[in-house]
Amino acid sequence: MADINAIAKQFVDFYYSTFDTNRAGLAPLYRDHSMLTFEGTPTQGVASIKEKLEGLPFSKVQHKVTTLDAQPSSPNVASLIVSVTGLLLVDDSENPLNFSQVFQLIPDGSSYYVFNDIFRLNYG
Amino acid sequence: MADINAIAKQFVDFYYSTFDTNRAGLAPLYRDHSMLTFEGTPTQGVASIKEKLEGLPFSKVQHKVTTLDAQPSSPNVASLIVSVTGLLLVDDSENPLNFSQVFQLIPDGSSYYVFNDIFRLNYG
Repeated sequence: MADINAIAKQFVDFYYSTFDTNRAGLAPLYRDHSMLTFEGTPTQGVASIKEKLEGLPFSKVQHKVTTLDAQPSSPNVASLIVSVTGLLLVDDSENPLNFSQVFQLIPDGSSYYVFNDIFRLNYG
Repeated sequence: MADINAIAKQFVDFYYSTFDTNRAGLAPLYRDHSMLTFEGTPTQGVASIKEKLEGLPFSKVQHKVTTLDAQPSSPNVASLIVSVTGLLLVDDSENPLNFSQVFQLIPDGSSYYVFNDIFRLNYG
């Protein structure tokens, strides 16, 4: 599964660096049937997801990935599930928050789009 | 998505109560192409997954689910992604561990089996 892990790593690096520097740049990763459940609130479609992500109430944010796991999500299609845990630093707070996030990536030409996206903070 | 959330809740209740009382009873949830990545170690197939789960080095374990999210994982099939975060109490330790776990459930007759399973502890 070397290939799938490399794809997952590349996606995750791109996703969080874009999230942390230019959140509007995430929109092209989603499609009209994509879903984002953020802290239990479901949204669907690229326009709603873009609005949700850009409206999150922090101006400075940094994700640090702690663990990254990937598995093929279908016997027929080269789709994959990517599961991330990590730390979130928000607005110069000194107390990072644990988060977990899961994506399903679907192949689209030579690239992938996000069909599923579920984000949760983990309170200890 | 009321239906999908009800299915996810029913699955998760069954999964963790079985895990905590009779780990061998989890094997029928998996198939030969099922995957489990437990703390970064991948296993595949019902026999290997059963061996992995039964060999985990704790005799008493209790899962407490904190958050549960579900999304359809395919436009064509009634499969779903279930994302769980929670607390794990092991062998009478007083310090619960945060965990996150993601499943993909695939319909199989009137029930579901686990195609993907990724488990991680989250250290704060």
